[in-house]
Amino acid sequence: MTALIVIPAVISVLALTSAFLFNRAVVRKAQGTDRMKKLQGYIRSGAFTFMLEEARVMAIAMVVIGILLWVLFYWEVAVAFWLGSLLSMSAGFIGMNTATHANARTTEGARKSFKEALAVAFTGGSVMGLSVAGLAVAGLVIVFLIFHHLFDPASLHIQTRYLFGIKSAGVNLIKGALVVSAYSMGASLVALFDRVGGGIYTKAADTAADLVGKVEMHIPEDDPRNPATIADNVGDNVGDVGGLGADLLESFIGAIISVIVMVLYLYVGRNNASLQGLIAKLGFSAGLDAATYWWLLLAPLVIVAGGTFASWLSILYVRVSGTAENVEGILMRGTRIAAILTAVTTFLFCWFSPLSLSIFYEVILGLIGGIAIGFFSEYYTSTTYKPTRQLSKSNQDGPGISVAEGLALGMLSTFLPVIVIAGATIGAYQFGGLLGVAFTAMGMLSFVAMTVSVDTYGPIADNAGGIATMSELPPEVRERTDKLDAIGNTTAAIGKGFAIGSAAFATLGLIASYMWSAIGSASQVVAPQLPIVGQIAASVSPTGSPIQVGAYVLAGLVVGAMVPYVFSALLIRGVSHTAGLLVEEIRRQFKESPKIMTGEQEADFNRCISITAHGGLHKMLLPAAIAVITPFVIGLIFGRYALGGFLVGGLLSAIQLAIFCGNSGGAMDNAKKFIEEGHFGGKGSEAHESSVVGDTVGDPLKDTVGPSLDILIKLMSVIALVFASLFPVYPIFM
Amino acid sequence: MTALIVIPAVISVLALTSAFLFNRAVVRKAQGTDRMKKLQGYIRSGAFTFMLEEARVMAIAMVVIGILLWVLFYWEVAVAFWLGSLLSMSAGFIGMNTATHANARTTEGARKSFKEALAVAFTGGSVMGLSVAGLAVAGLVIVFLIFHHLFDPASLHIQTRYLFGIKSAGVNLIKGALVVSAYSMGASLVALFDRVGGGIYTKAADTAADLVGKVEMHIPEDDPRNPATIADNVGDNVGDVGGLGADLLESFIGAIISVIVMVLYLYVGRNNASLQGLIAKLGFSAGLDAATYWWLLLAPLVIVAGGTFASWLSILYVRVSGTAENVEGILMRGTRIAAILTAVTTFLFCWFSPLSLSIFYEVILGLIGGIAIGFFSEYYTSTTYKPTRQLSKSNQDGPGISVAEGLALGMLSTFLPVIVIAGATIGAYQFGGLLGVAFTAMGMLSFVAMTVSVDTYGPIADNAGGIATMSELPPEVRERTDKLDAIGNTTAAIGKGFAIGSAAFATLGLIASYMWSAIGSASQVVAPQLPIVGQIAASVSPTGSPIQVGAYVLAGLVVGAMVPYVFSALLIRGVSHTAGLLVEEIRRQFKESPKIMTGEQEADFNRCISITAHGGLHKMLLPAAIAVITPFVIGLIFGRYALGGFLVGGLLSAIQLAIFCGNSGGAMDNAKKFIEEGHFGGKGSEAHESSVVGDTVGDPLKDTVGPSLDILIKLMSVIALVFASLFPVYPIFM
Repeated sequence: MTALIVIPAVISVLALTSAFLFNRAVVRKAQGTDRMKKLQGYIRSGAFTFMLEEARVMAIAMVVIGILLWVLFYWEVAVAFWLGSLLSMSAGFIGMNTATHANARTTEGARKSFKEALAVAFTGGSVMGLSVAGLAVAGLVIVFLIFHHLFDPASLHIQTRYLFGIKSAGVNLIKGALVVSAYSMGASLVALFDRVGGGIYTKAADTAADLVGKVEMHIPEDDPRNPATIADNVGDNVGDVGGLGADLLESFIGAIISVIVMVLYLYVGRNNASLQGLIAKLGFSAGLDAATYWWLLLAPLVIVAGGTFASWLSILYVRVSGTAENVEGILMRGTRIAAILTAVTTFLFCWFSPLSLSIFYEVILGLIGGIAIGFFSEYYTSTTYKPTRQLSKSNQDGPGISVAEGLALGMLSTFLPVIVIAGATIGAYQFGGLLGVAFTAMGMLSFVAMTVSVDTYGPIADNAGGIATMSELPPEVRERTDKLDAIGNTTAAIGKGFAIGSAAFATLGLIASYMWSAIGSASQVVAPQLPIVGQIAASVSPTGSPIQVGAYVLAGLVVGAMVPYVFSALLIRGVSHTAGLLVEEIRRQFKESPKIMTGEQEADFNRCISITAHGGLHKMLLPAAIAVITPFVIGLIFGRYALGGFLVGGLLSAIQLAIFCGNSGGAMDNAKKFIEEGHFGGKGSEAHESSVVGDTVGDPLKDTVGPSLDILIKLMSVIALVFASLFPVYPIFM
Repeated sequence: MTALIVIPAVISVLALTSAFLFNRAVVRKAQGTDRMKKLQGYIRSGAFTFMLEEARVMAIAMVVIGILLWVLFYWEVAVAFWLGSLLSMSAGFIGMNTATHANARTTEGARKSFKEALAVAFTGGSVMGLSVAGLAVAGLVIVFLIFHHLFDPASLHIQTRYLFGIKSAGVNLIKGALVVSAYSMGASLVALFDRVGGGIYTKAADTAADLVGKVEMHIPEDDPRNPATIADNVGDNVGDVGGLGADLLESFIGAIISVIVMVLYLYVGRNNASLQGLIAKLGFSAGLDAATYWWLLLAPLVIVAGGTFASWLSILYVRVSGTAENVEGILMRGTRIAAILTAVTTFLFCWFSPLSLSIFYEVILGLIGGIAIGFFSEYYTSTTYKPTRQLSKSNQDGPGISVAEGLALGMLSTFLPVIVIAGATIGAYQFGGLLGVAFTAMGMLSFVAMTVSVDTYGPIADNAGGIATMSELPPEVRERTDKLDAIGNTTAAIGKGFAIGSAAFATLGLIASYMWSAIGSASQVVAPQLPIVGQIAASVSPTGSPIQVGAYVLAGLVVGAMVPYVFSALLIRGVSHTAGLLVEEIRRQFKESPKIMTGEQEADFNRCISITAHGGLHKMLLPAAIAVITPFVIGLIFGRYALGGFLVGGLLSAIQLAIFCGNSGGAMDNAKKFIEEGHFGGKGSEAHESSVVGDTVGDPLKDTVGPSLDILIKLMSVIALVFASLFPVYPIFM
């Protein structure tokens, strides 16, 4: 049944070819006036400069960690890690390349018609969407092909590995599981740099441009006289295109590999009595053998290939149907179509395979859960609904009250998504235990190609608007791009909610894999029967005192719940610090060259870009180090149980904090836009001034903290998964 | 050994008698000018009106819940519940009574000398401190005396009780444990109302008075022309005196009873092999018998009696040593003396009793942990140290950046306290497992009489300053009260940090008791051997599928971590909504009666007081209902394992959120004060305007949200503990 691999292989080629052709289609479009070309050139080179500098920093981390993996484990692990990180970097570059091609061409399209603009922007977005899904699937196919011997059921067994031999009892390590985990870790690490570095960059530029431009100099947004205006547009690309793409690519891979890891452990432990119930639920009442094993192992790849194909069809649908009348409706319908088609392909696969329908139900839960969580984000942050309208109104009571109300809105908005996450967890468990949770996570992400396409279209439209203003094109052009942008804001809100929800589920899947591989070994039982939390602690320590393990789990939980707060604090400070440097630079330029304000002299855009880039890269180091080193240290010193608690604590805290930050910031931003549309006194009113303060507070929360938390929890979990076998079972001083 | 009860009985009488005498001493002091008398009268009557109205609302809840306890359990349970709630209410009234006597008398004292003012304010505070400790201990002694048969080792056994008989397997319920838990629940419920209602009241009045007074009308703080000025002063009393006292009383009782509950279960399960290790650690290697049982059961009461005695001595020390030179130093030294003396009395008790020194070590851990956490709060919020000074500086970059920086500071400040909590948990576990954690919590709270005395002195000094300004006394009087107040702010920060840390530990103790009583029964084993988190899930469900229980635990964890966010959101909204109503009223008064501004006509203080009171009472209902009903519903529908997860999730989330909110708000407040002292442009500068915005955001976080979260987690845990035996073990639909 290894022939099943053909399906994901073919579909990844289809996705990547389409991405290439769509990119060609975008590049062939006219670029517009000289001024537009020049601006596009600035943005492109600024974005690439940042990406390349960031890649240099990443390359060092990649080499060090790869060598570490080679020394500690096997060369295959290092290769898989490098493959994952290179693919993730490529996805970022491809997306950025298209987005910075598409921005001015969207503006040029808007000079003709709304429909033309939409076509360019969405085509640009779909290049990113298809690349993310295509690269992730292709990479996994490559891993399977070059390391096929590691997945052969005949060769699957537990290997033992010690680190300094310290109290590290017999550890179970399945080489194939380690290789796919390392692949995922590579993607995670790149995503962390992209999200954190890009997040600090984009918000520092945005905040500084607004502070000096709008507040001090009273010039409008995207005014070409503002020296930080190009940096701001670069930020949209590095944060919202590169960062978001890497984030979802990582969730996608993490969700897939957590299923694969669990299947490997399930096969090795297939004769364990406690696993018979689960094996029967999967459709193999007669037991798991070499043939049925292949169906199960390749199921995640086939299902996500189906999702990618479904997304490809939906992208075509949107491209064909795009009209000025109901763009938002068509995008929403496209997403729904992708979800429904994914359900259909999954059903067909489960029906024609020996697998039971339980996997289909789990995927359905994921699809519905993902869409629901996305909708809740929209509900809380869009001015179509009551919460943000009320927040907008509260701006009349001054900035203090309105910021407090914005924070309250974000806190309140944790309720519905968490209920969905809890409900989906219970449902997935009923269908298939921890493996069911992993399949649900995968289901949520299976149509990621469509989600990323829709999400990437937003920043392209945003950039197009900026170029329109800076090129001093007629107002109807800006009106068209504004309309595109407004829809982009809605889809971005949905996308952010979806990213959090899917990250939470992907992390659950990763933690579940960690439990199976790390804690199972503690009692020398592969894939033990105990449920997730019980598993952490339900074992007796070598000194015979179970009480002590419990203490470490508890301490791990509390410390884990703290890390997202410290991480977030460092990001907020990174943004304000970098923005502070940029503010000084902008003020300096205006002061030293008064001709900038009169328009006689061009501002020094490059200096602003370079200051922001250095700030972003510098300030991402400490939070990145925390994400990478903390789980390693906890595992090494306090053992695997403590690390299990740490991961669960981190997940619990990060889910709430990410939803809170994302929705607070989104609502404060949109409350400001609502006032700018003329409500509560409109631009220049006291309410507007309050809302600008709210936006300054909310921006880093929404675009830096919230999205980076998604990565933090995934990265910490995948690091735990990769290094689990090296960590002692109990604290080294116990 | 039941004679040991004499020690806590005698010391509670000593504490209460001293409190009475100190109160007499305060009342005998001169009240000052007619104007001062009048203002004091307003504040007193406003505070009492609010307390009485709040008591009316509480009385309804008390009657309903008491009857419920009577119907579901036994009459003794209802009586203990009422006793706990009445004592807690009394503590609030006594503290309020003294504080509102002491405020004007402190002002009058300040007219003579600083030392005189300090003596009155601290004596007033110590009445509250001694009352809290005295009443809590006296109440427990009364419970022991009137229900002594329930604690007799001969009569200790497991009783069975069903609710609707739904899948409620044999449940273990020890009547004595239930009675003390209900006593604690009574105190918790009153504390919730006091903290939430008082917290909304105080911040709504403060915010509204500032918004209209300082920002719109440009009149200074505490100006008698401001109609909300009296309401603001009333708020200091209902929030900071009544609320804080009830909060710490509740932590104190919760920590004591969690030890008692665990001792009862330990005795019943004394022959269980898994408990022999713990029993040996406690000093009873030969096993636990009826005689040694009494030593263990009464140990918590004797130890806290020792702490209360130590506090009483320290209070005398402060009263004797109070000079103008080094008040802060003397207060700190007093606190340290109380801690050291508590350690000494505990050591003596452990030494002369058959108990081993392990309990002494646990208490020491608690004492050190509590002081450390308090200090960290001071470090992050006081202008003596770098963090708040830097925050103050960032106000120069405008309100948006400074609020973001303030939030970042609060997030960062979770690091150190959480490390202390984690370390103390591990340490306590090493000495005595879950019981060790409960003893550590108790240790942290054992010298509560001193902590509350120091904390209560702050709001009295604050009020005294208000009265000085409103009575138009010479500036040197205000200078003296300001100096007192500044020290009060530092002690308040320490007190808030301490309240959070001790609440976290008391909750751990309560959750531990819940685990022993509720989950132990699930597998028909009393006091099972598994550690805290493992216990939640390490059992097989009746349908034979352990996987499903794990899902409910996990769902419980996620939902539990969400509740503190929703709860906090409702409080912030409660404050802004109530402040909004009050702002309208103040504006109306200024508009309709222009003579108020010229001073020819007195503002209608009472209307402002009554609007704030109604707002506070109205807006506390939903959060209170969430705190009370959620654990009940989760337990009833999803069973005890899910509820265990829910409590742990709630605790993890609430610890971080409470520290974050408390320190963010505290730092933003002090950053403003630092600017007002003349830094970064001083009053009226742009930095000052920014800091006022920060203060408006931070105030409800610091004084409403943070402290209320302390109560939320304790109340939810104690409700779970009381009703545990009625909840089904597994979800009702499983």
